[in-house]
Amino acid sequence: MGEFDLIQRYFQRPATRSPLGVGDDCALLAPAPGMQLAVSSDMLVEGRHFLSTVDPARLGHKALAVNLSDLAACGAKPLAFTLALALPGVDEGWLEGFSRGLFALADQHGCELVGGDTTRGPLNLCITVFGEVPAGAALLRSGARAGDELWTSGTLGDARLALENFRGTLSLPGPLFERARARMEQPAPRVALGQALRGIASAAADVSDGLAGDLGHILRASRVGATLDVDAAMHCIAAVADGSAAAAGLERDTLRAMAISGGDDYELVFTAPASARAAVEQAGRDSATPVTRIGRIDAESGLRFVDAAGAPVAQRFGSFDHFA
Amino acid sequence: MGEFDLIQRYFQRPATRSPLGVGDDCALLAPAPGMQLAVSSDMLVEGRHFLSTVDPARLGHKALAVNLSDLAACGAKPLAFTLALALPGVDEGWLEGFSRGLFALADQHGCELVGGDTTRGPLNLCITVFGEVPAGAALLRSGARAGDELWTSGTLGDARLALENFRGTLSLPGPLFERARARMEQPAPRVALGQALRGIASAAADVSDGLAGDLGHILRASRVGATLDVDAAMHCIAAVADGSAAAAGLERDTLRAMAISGGDDYELVFTAPASARAAVEQAGRDSATPVTRIGRIDAESGLRFVDAAGAPVAQRFGSFDHFA
Repeated sequence: MGEFDLIQRYFQRPATRSPLGVGDDCALLAPAPGMQLAVSSDMLVEGRHFLSTVDPARLGHKALAVNLSDLAACGAKPLAFTLALALPGVDEGWLEGFSRGLFALADQHGCELVGGDTTRGPLNLCITVFGEVPAGAALLRSGARAGDELWTSGTLGDARLALENFRGTLSLPGPLFERARARMEQPAPRVALGQALRGIASAAADVSDGLAGDLGHILRASRVGATLDVDAAMHCIAAVADGSAAAAGLERDTLRAMAISGGDDYELVFTAPASARAAVEQAGRDSATPVTRIGRIDAESGLRFVDAAGAPVAQRFGSFDHFA
Repeated sequence: MGEFDLIQRYFQRPATRSPLGVGDDCALLAPAPGMQLAVSSDMLVEGRHFLSTVDPARLGHKALAVNLSDLAACGAKPLAFTLALALPGVDEGWLEGFSRGLFALADQHGCELVGGDTTRGPLNLCITVFGEVPAGAALLRSGARAGDELWTSGTLGDARLALENFRGTLSLPGPLFERARARMEQPAPRVALGQALRGIASAAADVSDGLAGDLGHILRASRVGATLDVDAAMHCIAAVADGSAAAAGLERDTLRAMAISGGDDYELVFTAPASARAAVEQAGRDSATPVTRIGRIDAESGLRFVDAAGAPVAQRFGSFDHFA
């Protein structure tokens, strides 16, 4: 199968949003009047962002999910994406699964494939995603203010638990592992929550490199600091909330580290004035997304970790860095 | 050096066009009223699109040039781009050269880096480029009509001559090789010509996989055929035009193949009504880009090759396919 047959068989669908769609030199997009286009690009590499054994449909899902998560962090509504794909060869079973998982998530969010590129090379997936947001309404990293409350969406740390099980550094009971693995391989981008938080949250980022690291981006951009309740964060781990982590004998410090610096969560970390607490909770209900308060923004720079009683925690937490 | 230092040192510059620029979850773009956004994505892989020995500044140039060439083919004006980069490790000399070459071409076209991603992995460069074009004015592949004349810009085949010299299938004299190598490593995207051809050309595509292959896209999209003068195309090779190919003893059939199916040219192949011949030539002068008539569009489907005298040419020409 040649390059153009491959595109036609697995990736060409009738275009509705772009006047051109897949197949010309460029796709054409026009945001509605008064809207800005939010753009983000993420590259996934085998062995770093996914394991060679991953189910291709789950990989198709994840490749788009991590990009939609960036749109969510800006409060943008997904519109379209381009896909550039380097493949070691043509594996039709893989392509069928990958494109099925990709388009299932794309359809769920009304996000249309409008162009891309395919080439031969070590497996690499690069998606650029486009969303729209009313001019001036995008959630930024730079809006956090001292006194704001610090929030996270959904669950944290489960993806990293699954990764550590794959690495053999810990051993999870089967059902716990399968749930954690689904979180790692099929993250749910918080697209509805991001849009619901427009006009409510003061700053937001998505959690891809770990809560502490991505919160750090907000703190630097906003020139503030924060105090983070590591136990509140730890209780965001699904396996902690449902008691299965305790039953499996996982230690507190391990679980805290999973929540604070696990990575691959694709949740939102965001800030909002204390006066907006009820509005944040309503945004969570409206988008069917759990939201949890995990700390506060301080005028003093730096990130301080405390336990549920407010006492300082000495444990150190890192952040994922592809080059560290 | 960590991932964020790397971005800050080599890729972060003050944003002028995007309200956000590099450093938030998304970049924000707003095309001017009445304009559509043209989007294209190209992925470059070591060993397929460039050699491991290439000068990093030339590679930075080329990575953006091949994307700008897609904008040129649509008649769009460059605005911005995202860069996703997988690197085997941090090589500061390489990063300095790569970013220098990249930004030199970006500045030349007023095209701003607004976001991207960096990760560790086999070297892979994925750029998504954004341009603007008045609504309805984009050059498409689908507009060619029987009776239109067939044109190409600039020079063809020189990049492939250089590649074949690298591969050892032919041996070029030093000065000829250096000129051909510059064409291969630093193509000049025909951005000004593309914009000048709006309202004049009936269809256009950029020549990346070889003239015959990319012309084929126009023919299929327009449901027409063409007759192509292989000698006119061959005379578009710079090394033929300046006599150095003849002096080097290169054979006619080799040269015809370089021009027709060489690839990596990043010229425009386009069609225009015969009545627009003077306008096409004026667009070439206005954009300081040579344009050459190389054939005509036929109602009968298929691509026919003829020589300068109009006699059929039996030689077969392929097209580059990453998976064939």
